[in-house]
Amino acid sequence: MKAAVIPGVNEEWELREVPTPEPGPADVLIRVRASGICSNDVLVTKGMLPFPAFDPAIPGHEPVGEVVAVGDAVTSRQVGDVVGTTWIRGTCGSCDYCRLGLPLSARAAFACAAPVSTGFTVQGGQAEYIVVAADQTVLIPDHLAPELAVPVLCAGYTSWSALRSADPKPGERVAVVGIGGLGHLAVQYARACGFDTIAVTSSPEKHDLARELGAGTVVSNGEELRAAGGADVVLVTGTSYRAAADAMTGLNVNGRLVLAGIDVTEPFTLPPMLPFFGLGQRIIGATHNGTEYLREALDLVAAGKVKPLVETFAAEDVAEAVRKVGKGEVRFRAVVTY
Amino acid sequence: MKAAVIPGVNEEWELREVPTPEPGPADVLIRVRASGICSNDVLVTKGMLPFPAFDPAIPGHEPVGEVVAVGDAVTSRQVGDVVGTTWIRGTCGSCDYCRLGLPLSARAAFACAAPVSTGFTVQGGQAEYIVVAADQTVLIPDHLAPELAVPVLCAGYTSWSALRSADPKPGERVAVVGIGGLGHLAVQYARACGFDTIAVTSSPEKHDLARELGAGTVVSNGEELRAAGGADVVLVTGTSYRAAADAMTGLNVNGRLVLAGIDVTEPFTLPPMLPFFGLGQRIIGATHNGTEYLREALDLVAAGKVKPLVETFAAEDVAEAVRKVGKGEVRFRAVVTY
Amino acid sequence: MKAAVIPGVNEEWELREVPTPEPGPADVLIRVRASGICSNDVLVTKGMLPFPAFDPAIPGHEPVGEVVAVGDAVTSRQVGDVVGTTWIRGTCGSCDYCRLGLPLSARAAFACAAPVSTGFTVQGGQAEYIVVAADQTVLIPDHLAPELAVPVLCAGYTSWSALRSADPKPGERVAVVGIGGLGHLAVQYARACGFDTIAVTSSPEKHDLARELGAGTVVSNGEELRAAGGADVVLVTGTSYRAAADAMTGLNVNGRLVLAGIDVTEPFTLPPMLPFFGLGQRIIGATHNGTEYLREALDLVAAGKVKPLVETFAAEDVAEAVRKVGKGEVRFRAVVTY
Amino acid sequence: MKAAVIPGVNEEWELREVPTPEPGPADVLIRVRASGICSNDVLVTKGMLPFPAFDPAIPGHEPVGEVVAVGDAVTSRQVGDVVGTTWIRGTCGSCDYCRLGLPLSARAAFACAAPVSTGFTVQGGQAEYIVVAADQTVLIPDHLAPELAVPVLCAGYTSWSALRSADPKPGERVAVVGIGGLGHLAVQYARACGFDTIAVTSSPEKHDLARELGAGTVVSNGEELRAAGGADVVLVTGTSYRAAADAMTGLNVNGRLVLAGIDVTEPFTLPPMLPFFGLGQRIIGATHNGTEYLREALDLVAAGKVKPLVETFAAEDVAEAVRKVGKGEVRFRAVVTY
Repeated sequence: MKAAVIPGVNEEWELREVPTPEPGPADVLIRVRASGICSNDVLVTKGMLPFPAFDPAIPGHEPVGEVVAVGDAVTSRQVGDVVGTTWIRGTCGSCDYCRLGLPLSARAAFACAAPVSTGFTVQGGQAEYIVVAADQTVLIPDHLAPELAVPVLCAGYTSWSALRSADPKPGERVAVVGIGGLGHLAVQYARACGFDTIAVTSSPEKHDLARELGAGTVVSNGEELRAAGGADVVLVTGTSYRAAADAMTGLNVNGRLVLAGIDVTEPFTLPPMLPFFGLGQRIIGATHNGTEYLREALDLVAAGKVKPLVETFAAEDVAEAVRKVGKGEVRFRAVVTY
Repeated sequence: MKAAVIPGVNEEWELREVPTPEPGPADVLIRVRASGICSNDVLVTKGMLPFPAFDPAIPGHEPVGEVVAVGDAVTSRQVGDVVGTTWIRGTCGSCDYCRLGLPLSARAAFACAAPVSTGFTVQGGQAEYIVVAADQTVLIPDHLAPELAVPVLCAGYTSWSALRSADPKPGERVAVVGIGGLGHLAVQYARACGFDTIAVTSSPEKHDLARELGAGTVVSNGEELRAAGGADVVLVTGTSYRAAADAMTGLNVNGRLVLAGIDVTEPFTLPPMLPFFGLGQRIIGATHNGTEYLREALDLVAAGKVKPLVETFAAEDVAEAVRKVGKGEVRFRAVVTY
Repeated sequence: MKAAVIPGVNEEWELREVPTPEPGPADVLIRVRASGICSNDVLVTKGMLPFPAFDPAIPGHEPVGEVVAVGDAVTSRQVGDVVGTTWIRGTCGSCDYCRLGLPLSARAAFACAAPVSTGFTVQGGQAEYIVVAADQTVLIPDHLAPELAVPVLCAGYTSWSALRSADPKPGERVAVVGIGGLGHLAVQYARACGFDTIAVTSSPEKHDLARELGAGTVVSNGEELRAAGGADVVLVTGTSYRAAADAMTGLNVNGRLVLAGIDVTEPFTLPPMLPFFGLGQRIIGATHNGTEYLREALDLVAAGKVKPLVETFAAEDVAEAVRKVGKGEVRFRAVVTY
Repeated sequence: MKAAVIPGVNEEWELREVPTPEPGPADVLIRVRASGICSNDVLVTKGMLPFPAFDPAIPGHEPVGEVVAVGDAVTSRQVGDVVGTTWIRGTCGSCDYCRLGLPLSARAAFACAAPVSTGFTVQGGQAEYIVVAADQTVLIPDHLAPELAVPVLCAGYTSWSALRSADPKPGERVAVVGIGGLGHLAVQYARACGFDTIAVTSSPEKHDLARELGAGTVVSNGEELRAAGGADVVLVTGTSYRAAADAMTGLNVNGRLVLAGIDVTEPFTLPPMLPFFGLGQRIIGATHNGTEYLREALDLVAAGKVKPLVETFAAEDVAEAVRKVGKGEVRFRAVVTY
């Protein structure tokens, strides 16, 4: 099969011919149709995240395709099912963390002794085929195009988990910091669920787009957010903790700030003069929070209420796609077709 | 292997020699050491619950034993692990309910198109051996005797889920209605977690025992509960909805009544004159609520903070054990050893 | 001043000239402009709820008007403020319930030794003037017409509290049982907050209206609700517990049924065959749940997102208004102007 | 009457004869019996917190005594009631914050336009008499000595609110960082409610005391906390945000860190390498969270389950008391008797 391979740190991805994997008894073989590139894939390539622990190094944790073969022990999937899988799709099942019995989530990436991490510990989805344990696949809703399902498997899942982890109450105001791969989805998710939604972006050229995505108000920073009435929930979707801390200026009493990612350049510091404790505010860490949230995130896209903005690349152009993602030039998620 | 078999509705269980099952690639073979009898097993035998859908009809959904063989695809378990499994241990994975992506719980018994239901849809644990998918086993904490782990897999799991589903706050008062298979554990669980615990039982002969189990107060009904200061949480562990409704008399403002089982004789009716809506009370349905709760329930027993009271029977005496359970003579959970 | 007076049980209300009350040092004097009639006022008149405990018996617990005088000790209100008050506006402050320190809510009606209950324990708002402790008034949002604020003080407050008490999650489906004084607001509140909203009404002639109010789907009963995909939250706004129980047929796994009122004819009974406990469902009692909910309910109306449907009556026609409310002919809330 | 007065910034407190205040119609006059000194009083004296905005500057926000006179409009209190009041005991009632309708809490200190702040905006409790609006007093439980009630009004209220705001689940592990005025109560509160409690203190000489207070484990820092099994809830009761961040090393998956105060020397910074977002952790700001929490905090002391450690001073020695509090020499709360 054809697959994208990272030859080594700081090298360009190559489309190569590699052996097609074979499903074990509990697995399905998926003919991948579309596969996303995430900024984390760029960090991997640059050596800023762990390099894939298998050879050849096929990355990709947002694949969608149809099942073309199933192992003997599989009952939950059949040939023809359209499925995807996620970054953290399984755990070791026996470490201290696993013994807690918590539902599957990306917490396992940080807490399980041996998580199954697509494109990191096992072959990723930037390939014509991928083998996945049947129980580690998710059924894609009918009539949802693979290109639109792909960004939900990581970006949408993260954005939606962030919103859900804040436990927003009916009528609350939700601000989204950063209008990018995650943020353009977070704005839509918040708006689709009826929240008065505010985009916070320091990029003036994104103001119009933010409004089109559903933001009723667009501001440039926390001070303007404050002036616009503040927010009960602030979802930080970008990678700048400085922007996150600045946005807290606009967080209401009892408000919640959700950090859905990490800033690799500096730690998060609470604004010095903010009476955080006195205002009853909260800071919430969120990631892929559990399969029910992925399902909800997919359903809202399938219902047409949220529409990922994607740029599609042919498999032959995967290196070019990575370059564009690395430069932040993709609006907003890169999808490679196989 | 030897196994307990229900020959037919209203017939006595028999210990028979039957073929030992063989594990598939994703399964483990468990040498069962102890296996519980639940009042639901009696209802099955009487034809009041669905008869096991396999032949021979080996019941039992509280088995504990050690892994003696693992399938080729299994990585999470190894020979020697001491494990158990539960009533609802898996789902079909593809029905509307499964598509919701909810964590595994006994909700699937009522909502999944084809749940894997130990002793109901697949062979149960009243046998020397049972085959279970590795992912559907739970590791028993070290140093916890199988006889004490067994009752946790159903009765303890239910009792703890009931308590947890009420989301009790520090310092709240918890009442347990019924001191039996579930209730004697519920009292201990509530007390072990520091709650001021009240037993509500119409059986005067159980008052002393209830105190020994940790109840600070023992009353006979809702009126006495009210007089004793009421409860913020009432856990209904018996099968009488009439007793449940009566206990609501003693439920405080903002209090929660948890129904953890069904009364097959009459429906639940709110007390007519109770200003339920005005007092902000709640009625909560609970069952086996998810694997993290099973883990917590096991850990409290392993830590010695909760001690199931069991009556142990040799495999040869399984019919006698069923008879005693049916008459309500067991104090409080019957365990058969293999 | 002119005031509506109930001469006695089962007698017609009369508009009479009575002494204007005078504010004490902690009070404000309000020149009432609009005052609502609630079906509970009809029940009082019929002797089915306690008769006002003062003379003359001026009912009414939904008054709105402007402050025209303030007591010497008042700092929070000034002449010209437009304010309203609610059914339960104060408590005794020293009984066992009050010692709990809970926020003010209508739980006090059922739990406080001596609640201040507008139109029940103290003079009501069906009059040109009413005296209220300053701390027991709520500021009406600017630019909100008194006639539209009035129904929020009881019906809107109840409907919104019902929705909030169910703690609906983003993307959940909300069904409203009954399209009347409360239900026509509940549908609008749910829809205004972005929920997919379903009206459940046995009155075919209300189907079109329910859709105009924002219901995306209208069904006649629980079975149809089930067929339409079910609901995660069911708000029972009518007074038939039979209809409430029927609607549970359409309640989803983990769903919540909110009882926001009482059926004086029969108690609430869970549907016999429903595996309520197994589905993890909940029944929630709700009423006026706290001043923050009243504020939220008012703000959504002030923002134009919810529009109470009212029928306005001159003070001289108050008896006629009561008659129409009693017959269920008002669409949907009766407001008397003074 | 006699009262402690702060002559000016950085001056010693003086016991002076000043006019006794007179109650207005909605007020009570309290004969103070005991009154606490808080480290914030020291900060006020040093000019690091706003100086009392009245003259003479009588501080103190933890007074307890009996009602000796009531205003004409008062019905909730009577002569002889033993009452106390708190730091933030009222709000302006009309600002944007007050319009939210939230229950009274110390959030008002930071969000209300004109909070009533005992010892800061109005006369404090370090005096023989204090006038307080009846509705702004709290009834002290019977048989609770004033000296033991005093520390609950600020230190206990804060500690308990911190625990409650973390919403600890039955069986969770609670760590308390800092064993001082707040921490010695937090340990007791956590233990009294049945939580496995861990004290984190860098002071070896406090280890024995921490165990006596109920800590099952005592560690020196986050690393040791981690090694001891970690905590699900970490209550930061001291004033070092550096110690708070260090303790996060021992915070479990899904754990919550509660900041119950402010570090005036440096802002809170998340540990740089901590995958906070990935572990689903939370940081929660807490303060005096509402009158129901004060009530609960008082009741646990009245029940003898928590015992504040106090050092009592005669009114004449108030300056000495302040000096000792300033040096951190009081074990653990200073109470002045009048």
